[in-house]
Amino acid sequence: MTTSFELLSEHACFGGVQRFYQHASAEIGLPMKFSVYLPPQATQGPVPALLYLAGLTCTEETFMVKAGAQRLAAELGLALIAPDTSPRGANAPGEAESWDFGVGAGFYLDATAEPWAKHWRMESYLMKELLPQVAAQLPIDGERLGIFGHSMGGHGALTLALRHPGRFKSLSAFAPICAPTQCPWGEKAFTGYLGADRTGWIEHDATVLMQHQPMAPYPGGILIDQGLADKFLPTQLHPELFEEACQAIGQPLTLRRHAGYDHGYYFIQSFMADHLAHHAKQLAGG
Amino acid sequence: MTTSFELLSEHACFGGVQRFYQHASAEIGLPMKFSVYLPPQATQGPVPALLYLAGLTCTEETFMVKAGAQRLAAELGLALIAPDTSPRGANAPGEAESWDFGVGAGFYLDATAEPWAKHWRMESYLMKELLPQVAAQLPIDGERLGIFGHSMGGHGALTLALRHPGRFKSLSAFAPICAPTQCPWGEKAFTGYLGADRTGWIEHDATVLMQHQPMAPYPGGILIDQGLADKFLPTQLHPELFEEACQAIGQPLTLRRHAGYDHGYYFIQSFMADHLAHHAKQLAGG
Repeated sequence: MTTSFELLSEHACFGGVQRFYQHASAEIGLPMKFSVYLPPQATQGPVPALLYLAGLTCTEETFMVKAGAQRLAAELGLALIAPDTSPRGANAPGEAESWDFGVGAGFYLDATAEPWAKHWRMESYLMKELLPQVAAQLPIDGERLGIFGHSMGGHGALTLALRHPGRFKSLSAFAPICAPTQCPWGEKAFTGYLGADRTGWIEHDATVLMQHQPMAPYPGGILIDQGLADKFLPTQLHPELFEEACQAIGQPLTLRRHAGYDHGYYFIQSFMADHLAHHAKQLAGG
Repeated sequence: MTTSFELLSEHACFGGVQRFYQHASAEIGLPMKFSVYLPPQATQGPVPALLYLAGLTCTEETFMVKAGAQRLAAELGLALIAPDTSPRGANAPGEAESWDFGVGAGFYLDATAEPWAKHWRMESYLMKELLPQVAAQLPIDGERLGIFGHSMGGHGALTLALRHPGRFKSLSAFAPICAPTQCPWGEKAFTGYLGADRTGWIEHDATVLMQHQPMAPYPGGILIDQGLADKFLPTQLHPELFEEACQAIGQPLTLRRHAGYDHGYYFIQSFMADHLAHHAKQLAGG
């Protein structure tokens, strides 16, 4: 069922418009907020769009405020879509006890373990509800979508892109969690959301998913930027494992390691232009 | 007395470095925080710098997070300096009762009325302490400074630039409070900080200060951007009065009125590039 979006606020920005919406999500079973930037070109008809997935503790506002992406999106004629990072208001037991699990930490998957299975359905929410509705209700071309994200959202971008072949035409990430079954953040989240049996975990691990691809799913290449002063790099992110998996199946990957850069939005904004250009190039065909 | 800066955090950003500092301010009598962006060129020697003054409720972080200025500052070789908007921790009676007075609302002047006179000395803090110390301790050329700001900080930029002839080589503002003696925000702040006698108020009113200039203080021009969907425009900002004052004395002013834009940082970031270019052009001589 399609419910209409409630416009919470609207701001002119680089000739386009920055909007914040709320809607009743059937998949989540709760109201969900998201943000959209529409470039000036969207007044002429549907434009290609990028889905950006944010990291732990972020909201639908973080990317739009901190990433500096609207300027180039306006130039390139790209819409930007940023959902929240989890359900809010579920009042599930323990949902707010950790900054890396529960509220603000949905990991972009559908939970199967209790008490999370009812509301923590971020994958279905994004793929079956938010993206179709955005394409139906806004001047966005649902056939020309790219996906990117940061940290937990980088994990989300890589896994959703690999789990839904053909749905996204372009893929990139900033400091993504590349092998969640092998890092503390991922082990904690997957244990909680999917249960202690690791069998199902590999369906949500970007490195394992890439290892199992029959051929390169993104022949135009994947772009990943990683700061070398990122304090989470040694234990949580493991880009080298994803890099190996790409090499093994011939998936072109540009993995750039940047000396001195950390895990935050000053890093992200520094390389945002390259990511938008990467997506625009691959979405231009439409 | 010069005290050394305490580095609170540091982030690589567009090839330069984003820093947050704290120092013991003699003028304020309390610790003060500020932020600095140093472009890549600062590793080669002192660079020109822009002092940015933020609006009501903001902190030293707001501009650096939301304005999207670092990208162009890196290209142009400009440092950016953003102070806090008031003393914090004074525990003055009533300091936190209003969002437009007291904490977060220093109005960039030295208070003369009690209980504010002791700590609320933002003008002396900036002009006699922060700017000299920044030039002494960081690779910033204290002879090549520009100033700009937003709303209350636009008032601060215009008034400090006019009250300290020659100190700033370039001047611009986003949606500034142009005639504080004629608007509710200004009347409240000046009554509180300067007392009910309006005689002294005009020394801190940009429109009156411009009226009293013997000749154009910024022959290279002043740039002001104003959104026409700004909800504060009808009652608080009065750019038309500043425009008249500039015309009367022959001060070149580019006042751009933008349909649809509001008072926030989505507006500011949309026109940031023009402001940095305006300053860079006038600071290039150094």
